[in-house]
Amino acid sequence: MRRRHFLVGGMGALAACSETPQSSAPVVSEEQHHWRMVTSWPPNFPGHGVSANRMAARLEQLSGGRLQVEVFAAGELVPAFEVLDAVSRGTVQLGHSAPIYWRGSIPAAQLFGSVPFGMMADQFNAWLYFGGGLELWREAYAGHGVIPFPAGNTGAQMGGWFNREINSPADLNGLKMRIPGLGGEVMQRAGALPVNLPGSEIFTALQTGAIDATEWVGPYNDTAFGLHQAAQYYYHPGWQEPSGALELFVSVEAFESLSEELKGILEIACMAENDYLLAEFNTRNHTSLNTLVEEHGVQLRRFPDDVLDALRGFSLEVVEELAATDPMSGRVLESYRAFAEEVSAWLRISELS
Amino acid sequence: MRRRHFLVGGMGALAACSETPQSSAPVVSEEQHHWRMVTSWPPNFPGHGVSANRMAARLEQLSGGRLQVEVFAAGELVPAFEVLDAVSRGTVQLGHSAPIYWRGSIPAAQLFGSVPFGMMADQFNAWLYFGGGLELWREAYAGHGVIPFPAGNTGAQMGGWFNREINSPADLNGLKMRIPGLGGEVMQRAGALPVNLPGSEIFTALQTGAIDATEWVGPYNDTAFGLHQAAQYYYHPGWQEPSGALELFVSVEAFESLSEELKGILEIACMAENDYLLAEFNTRNHTSLNTLVEEHGVQLRRFPDDVLDALRGFSLEVVEELAATDPMSGRVLESYRAFAEEVSAWLRISELS
Repeated sequence: MRRRHFLVGGMGALAACSETPQSSAPVVSEEQHHWRMVTSWPPNFPGHGVSANRMAARLEQLSGGRLQVEVFAAGELVPAFEVLDAVSRGTVQLGHSAPIYWRGSIPAAQLFGSVPFGMMADQFNAWLYFGGGLELWREAYAGHGVIPFPAGNTGAQMGGWFNREINSPADLNGLKMRIPGLGGEVMQRAGALPVNLPGSEIFTALQTGAIDATEWVGPYNDTAFGLHQAAQYYYHPGWQEPSGALELFVSVEAFESLSEELKGILEIACMAENDYLLAEFNTRNHTSLNTLVEEHGVQLRRFPDDVLDALRGFSLEVVEELAATDPMSGRVLESYRAFAEEVSAWLRISELS
Repeated sequence: MRRRHFLVGGMGALAACSETPQSSAPVVSEEQHHWRMVTSWPPNFPGHGVSANRMAARLEQLSGGRLQVEVFAAGELVPAFEVLDAVSRGTVQLGHSAPIYWRGSIPAAQLFGSVPFGMMADQFNAWLYFGGGLELWREAYAGHGVIPFPAGNTGAQMGGWFNREINSPADLNGLKMRIPGLGGEVMQRAGALPVNLPGSEIFTALQTGAIDATEWVGPYNDTAFGLHQAAQYYYHPGWQEPSGALELFVSVEAFESLSEELKGILEIACMAENDYLLAEFNTRNHTSLNTLVEEHGVQLRRFPDDVLDALRGFSLEVVEELAATDPMSGRVLESYRAFAEEVSAWLRISELS
């Protein structure tokens, strides 16, 4: 009995997955693609950059060499924050970045990167695949001629590095902090002076005192930047990014040039990386945190409850104003919140019970 | 600048992934495989069975029809608990099942299914991919001529269905419960009479009173079986399976007959399913739980603390005796525990902080 139902549901771009080859003869393809992938990451950057390289290698291997991808670090072809533009213009076929960076051109993108005090990685993934999140993500980017794929998640991040202790909400007043996206807006309402800097510029800014604090990712990545050499206090939780989604986006035109087989390989490689990279962060963050505390004498601190309460209140304001001023953001937030509320109920019965 | 590092590390069977095609010419392959996959699941079973069918469809699509897989439900070709034997003998090429079922032939397999009171899905995945878990899993199965791949996770399960309330450890005395694997041994020490039954026989056994209680998976799967029509009380947490790993295993001989490209596709399809299926369970478990409680009047209960404390104590005994009597289990448990302790420290700083 043959039972092949083609239940690859929920993935808009993969509708083609349900088309089974009509013949059992091997597919003989002359297909050949030489693509370029620009990224927002410094050269050889642990986690994010390694992941981009790994995906390029997998695409080449899984396609039997039919899809070859050349990877460029930030600044090699385009600057870190021009990755979306480059793919949108068709200069390159692929971009590897984080949705939090596109506030200016796609306000709703921020909600796919991380909602302050929002869902963690597993719940976020459930929303993407089964709660309509991914369809909204693709709709939000459609006007820029690119299709985004979830391509890894950092898991919960850290609150950041501070060169002074944060003992009350008043200590945020006048604090110059590198923190992009919605988290930055929240900090601004709390009295801080947020700035955005690409990863490559953070260490120097913190060391020279151009900024007083920075969040980046978590112990694994932060150690690679040597941030512990520039600030003493390391705060948790990472309220601004309870999960940090990475994305691979492809230009619509390039995607349409692929056979159904290679479209599937591109999607499946991203989905696999979404599984694998979270496991990598969960492992290496711990190891790195141990080293930071035990060998480098880093002072680990939890934000006081009143600071978190204040930040939570401002976070609510910020996302609601975003939703009120940008219709696409409004739709995304409505879907996100409804799902978060539902799935949290299951989480309390299952993992937290 | 070309920066392709082939960082697909940590995956024993995928060492070939680092072999880049030497020529940029498209690979033209005459390769063709017609494989059979036996499963431990009833026909069209939500979650597990759907996942097996989805993977078969993906393998066919991603391989451009070069790897065709016919899927069989439990009993169609071999019974639910003879899936491992069938692949081991070479009767079929693929098996889709759960490691908890191989207690008799591979005692250590149980530790890859779920350790009572052990790690949850994300931490378990981190151990598999980056803590040496997958290598041990493959070593444990090697004597049976099969290679296992993690191929999905149910997330935290439920404690099960009971036709009477459990208010103290004494209420477990004499309880006839369907619960396989390590959980079953734990219940036996707590005074219960555990039995193992394939999924297809559970409902009838519970309804006729042949058993007093059963655990199966979680709200999504349990609803599909109609278990709420046979018992009134639904308990959490699923202490016996804080994460439930599913596996796809392939016969070594069949795997070796694949090109490097198809070996990679097989592995990546499993890794993707590991991401996707957890999201599906996290979504549908909630929806189903709501229906069970609100429409079917199911009584949701949490095991009392003293019951959980007793079960935790017996769980410790059971896994330690397994480790003491089976050397492979001893090595697996040592690795599992060391990793669990480390990664929990990070979890307290990140997701739970």
